[in-house]
Formats: sequence, structure tokens, C-alpha cells
Amino acid sequence: MLYFLKDLETFWGPFRLFEYQTFRAMMAGTTALVGGFLVAPWLLRKLDNLRQPEREAALMGEDIVKKGVQVPTMGGFLVLLPAMFAVFLWVRFNVQVAAVIIVYLGMSAVGFVDDYLKIRKNDSAGLSEWAKMAGLVAAALPAVVLLLATPGAQAATIEIWVPFLKVAALSADALPLWLGAAVAVVFFCVVTTGASNAVNFTDGLDGLAIGCVIASMLTFGLVAYLSGHAVFSNYLNISHVNGAGELAVLLGAVIGGAMVFLWYNAEPAQVYMGDLGALGLGGLIGAVAFVTNHPFLLVIVGGVFVVEAMSVIIQRVYYKHTKRRGEGRRIFKMTPIHHHFQKEGWANSKIVVRFWMLALLCGIVGLATLKLR
Amino acid sequence: MLYFLKDLETFWGPFRLFEYQTFRAMMAGTTALVGGFLVAPWLLRKLDNLRQPEREAALMGEDIVKKGVQVPTMGGFLVLLPAMFAVFLWVRFNVQVAAVIIVYLGMSAVGFVDDYLKIRKNDSAGLSEWAKMAGLVAAALPAVVLLLATPGAQAATIEIWVPFLKVAALSADALPLWLGAAVAVVFFCVVTTGASNAVNFTDGLDGLAIGCVIASMLTFGLVAYLSGHAVFSNYLNISHVNGAGELAVLLGAVIGGAMVFLWYNAEPAQVYMGDLGALGLGGLIGAVAFVTNHPFLLVIVGGVFVVEAMSVIIQRVYYKHTKRRGEGRRIFKMTPIHHHFQKEGWANSKIVVRFWMLALLCGIVGLATLKLR
Repeated sequence: MLYFLKDLETFWGPFRLFEYQTFRAMMAGTTALVGGFLVAPWLLRKLDNLRQPEREAALMGEDIVKKGVQVPTMGGFLVLLPAMFAVFLWVRFNVQVAAVIIVYLGMSAVGFVDDYLKIRKNDSAGLSEWAKMAGLVAAALPAVVLLLATPGAQAATIEIWVPFLKVAALSADALPLWLGAAVAVVFFCVVTTGASNAVNFTDGLDGLAIGCVIASMLTFGLVAYLSGHAVFSNYLNISHVNGAGELAVLLGAVIGGAMVFLWYNAEPAQVYMGDLGALGLGGLIGAVAFVTNHPFLLVIVGGVFVVEAMSVIIQRVYYKHTKRRGEGRRIFKMTPIHHHFQKEGWANSKIVVRFWMLALLCGIVGLATLKLR
Repeated sequence: MLYFLKDLETFWGPFRLFEYQTFRAMMAGTTALVGGFLVAPWLLRKLDNLRQPEREAALMGEDIVKKGVQVPTMGGFLVLLPAMFAVFLWVRFNVQVAAVIIVYLGMSAVGFVDDYLKIRKNDSAGLSEWAKMAGLVAAALPAVVLLLATPGAQAATIEIWVPFLKVAALSADALPLWLGAAVAVVFFCVVTTGASNAVNFTDGLDGLAIGCVIASMLTFGLVAYLSGHAVFSNYLNISHVNGAGELAVLLGAVIGGAMVFLWYNAEPAQVYMGDLGALGLGGLIGAVAFVTNHPFLLVIVGGVFVVEAMSVIIQRVYYKHTKRRGEGRRIFKMTPIHHHFQKEGWANSKIVVRFWMLALLCGIVGLATLKLR
């Protein structure tokens, strides 16, 4: 909204800053950070009677169960509220921004229902797997339909880019429109719901998920800025998506909110993000990766999320396969994989810092692939 | 050394990559990281009988004393050895690189002597404050003299740049040469020994110092790359220092080594960096800040180090001042300031993560000032 202050440049030169995405991304981050810290004490009091079920607490480690500490959940609000306020002030709205926000809010809503059911039943079941999946798809569909229905965004939405290739692997005119659109819809749903679930698997130790989410968002903030910039995207031979630069401003806002959350979520956590936070933020990252035409880059940048999700799938498949033969063996001591290292005797704080380091390295490697084409 | 492989480009195109500083910085980081993990088990066994004195262990928190854990020190080797190996392979040597390495190795040597004396006497005294200071200055002097004695580097060494200004605040021809050189020598010693001591004050909780050091090095790695790049330094109106880009490769190597160290230093730490690590890495960052003509940026980027050092100075001055009036009061419960928050009841892990977040924000704010001129 404040973007339009740039028109005051004729009165006072520095108002031109409001045109720059880098400046607005910084200001959005600062707004969410400051606003977040102002609203946090009130919000934490509100969340204080929303305790996670005991069965979930048990997974955090024996110490925690012994102490009988139950930490309030739904801390995802601590990211979402300040971030949306900052987005409202600093982002110049366009169809990419709208699509990403639809996914973020929609998937957060699914997480909210899940958290709410868990708290009411005091059980870690919540929504059934199928209901959750249906909810996530319902959040993704309007976003991708909006992108396809907007003439300026349609072609970029259908294009598929692959790392190391200088041109689109699938361009918009390679397929008939209906087929290209169908591929885009399916692909968008797979990327966003996949990312959403992967972040949710990662969310199991104090600070773990939000730290990895911040690393991914910093990386994709830079990717969005470069994709939206005509000169840089051309120099790097990456897809130029008109308007994607505003996603850098949006991510600035969400990073600011995420920093506030991490402040309180750092071990020992005073609040958990809940499915509200994990599903929403995962979907957001997936949507940004898709909209900037870097869906496959997400597999590298979000490497920690991929490993966490894969560990669950591998464990489940292997267990079922061996059970059919009457054994029922497991590969990991427990999944998602951070629990495996817990059982191996690593301290929670050590697992978290080491996973953060891996997330940071994944981000750096991901950025490096942009130059290798 | 591998830089010269670029000449093989005529045989196979991709050898041109060896010319790029970004590529070599990535490879230097990877080399130090992989090499560090290979050498770590051997090095940790070597350090195993170098335990820090009990008086120092007591500062880490009561839990740790109760458990009677004594952690080996001099872990700075875990950064230094793999980093120097990677520097040898990937950095193209020039006078800036030589100056920074002199400071890093020299100040590490001072720290080594300090650690060694502490271990032998089993007392936290080590070198006297004056002896330590003299050692640090002795490490800084040859570096700045080398810079001044090299025709191509002399002018840039004498120039002083200040944030927000588009030109040098003090240019090389504003003063007679002897006076400019004298100012440079004093200023270089102040910046490097100041940074060295400030990082040493920060080193007091598992992972605290190395995390903040990594954040500063990532920032200055980017600053060095931009300063050394004719087009970018001109676009940003920052000082163009011929050859400073190689410092980005050097920092890539040290960041790789620092990551290996953090892997083992994350709470609960298996090794401490010791004064060997803290004094050396602090001096390195100070030297890079000076050589890239961004000494004042270090005050912003290294904000956490500044606050830690200031807390000690303020406490000491205030205590002496009030003692003269017969009271002897203190402002902080204990300094360096991370101990203040410990006494306030924050968990060690929480202090560390929050200080890391501040270090990251300081780096981002510092980078933002590059654009505001």
C-alpha cells in the first residue's frame, strides 16, 4: 500500500525508495519484526490455554515429559498476523502475491482446524490424513486457477523449468492449452501440498522447523527478487517472471514474523507453531517455488524437509513390506528422522543446530545451481 | 593454486569456472567442510587432554559444573587447519590475502599461548592483559606494513571510508604520506585487536561465538566480493579494492571450517574454540573489514561483538567509578552480557539462538547500508 508513496518523489527525492523492492522487503521485515514483538505478549496470553496433547509432548523427549511441561500451540499466528500486516503495508499486490497468500492462508486454516480438533479431543489424531489432504488441495486449487485465469501470468504458470537447463523444459506452447493447464494444476497441488506436509514432518523439536523455514525463505526471497528482475534473470538465464519480485517483499514480511516466533520457540520453547504454522508456511514456500518457476530448486533448497518426509515414507513402506513377510522391521529407530537421532542419544539442541546448518548449506547449494547452466 | 587450471579452458570449456571467485569460494568452502569432517575425529582425540580450567567451566552454568564435564579446548584448530588447506588450494594469492592470513595466524598464535598457559597452570589467568595486547599488535603490524609497502595497495590502505558517504572520508592524497601511513597503522591495529578481543568476550556459551562469527563472515564475504568487483562496487558507490574479491574465496574456506567446528561445538559442546579460535577469527574479521575499506561497517555487522565488549567496559568503568565513592555498584548482573541473561534465568540454548538472530539481523542491516548512500 505504501508503494504509492513513491509518487511523492517529486516533493522529496528519498520517496523514490518506496519503489525499490529491496527497500520495501527490508521495511516489511522490520515492520513484521517490530509489530510481532509488540503483539507477542498479548498473543502468547491468548494461546496460553491451547495446550498440545500429551501424546505429542512425549515425542519431544523424556526430560520434557518428566517435567510435565505443556507448551501452548498455534504459535503460527505469531508469524501470520505480523506478516500479513506488513504485507498489507509494503507489498504491491499482483496475481503472484495473491496466489501465494491464498495458499498460505488456506493451508494455515487447514492447520488451524487440525490443531483445534487435537486440543478439543486432547489427542494427537486431529484431522484424518485424507481430510487434511483434501483441505490442502482445496487451498491450492483457487490459487492455481487464479494464475491460469490471468492473461499475464498464464504462460509462466504452464512453463516448467528444471535446474541446469537454460530454457524452459516445457514451454507454454508445447502443449494444447487445456493439457498444459491440467498439468499445471496437478503440479501446483503436488508442490504445495508436498512442501506443506514436509515442513509439518520437520516440526518436532524446539526451533527446528522455523529455523529451516527461515533458511528456505531467505533463499527463495533472493530467487524471487532475481526472477522478477529483467537484467539479473537474463544474466543468470533463469525464468523472468513479471511481478515475482514482489514475492521478495512478501517473504521479507514473513521472515520478520518468523524471527519473532523463533525468539519464543528457541529451546526451551514457550510456544509451538502447530499445524497452523507448519502447513501454512510449507505451502507458502511451495507456492513461491512454483510461481517463480523454480519448483525443482525446492528439492535442493528444502533438502532438510525432503529428507524428513522421505524418512517417514521409507520407514512406512519398508515396515509394511517386511510385515507382509511376517517380520515388520524398521530402518530408522523412529521417524521423522530427527527422532532417530534423539534415540541415538544426540541432545535436542544439537540435532536442531545441525539440521539448521544443513538447511543453510542446502540454501547455498541451491543458489549456486542458479549460476550453473 | 588451482586457479591456474583456468588456463586449461582451451582444452575443456568448463575449466573457465576456476577463474570465477564465486565458484572458487564455493569450492573452498566445500573443501574445508569435507576436509574438516575427515580430520575432526583425529583432531578431537588430540585435543582430548587439553581441558579448560575449572574456573572457566563454572561460567557455562551450574548444570555443567554439577555434571563435572570438562570440555577440551583449542578447537580453533578445527577451523584453522581445514581452512588453510582450502585457502592453499583455491585462493589466488595477493597482498590483501597475505595481510589477512598474517593477522589470522598471528592472533591465533597469541591465543594458542594463552590457552596453553591456562591449561598448564589449570587457572583461567593465562597471559596478562598487556602481554596479550602486545602479542595482538605484534601480529597486526607486519600485515599493515606489508599493505603500505605494496605500491598497488598503498592508496587503498590509507583511504578511510565511512557508511552513508559516497566517497572516501579521508583519501590517500589528503595527508602527507608519512602521516597517512601512521594513521593507517594505528587504525589497523585498533580495528583488528578490537575485533579480536570482542569475539573473545563473546565466546562464553556453546555455539555462541562461532555462530555470530559465521554470520559476520557471510556478510563480509559478500562485501569483499562486491568491493573487488569493478561493476558492482561502482554501482553501489563503495570503495573498489583491486584483489579484495579473493578475500571472498578465503572467507568461503574459513566458513567451511567454522561449520565443522559448530557441528561439534553446538550445545552440548564436545570442544571449545579457546582463545586460539576467538582471537584468531576476531582478528581475521577485523582485517577483512579494514582491507575492504569497510571498518565502520564492522560496528554494525558485528553488533553482537560490540555489545558484548561494551558491556564489559561499561561494567568495569561504572564499578570503578562508584567504588571510588565507596559503593562499587554494577549495571549488569554479570558480564560479558550473555552471562547477565544467564543470571536472569534464560536457558543457555535460548541466549545462544537469540544472539545468533541478532547477529543475522546485524548482517542484514549492514548490507542494507551499502545501498543507502
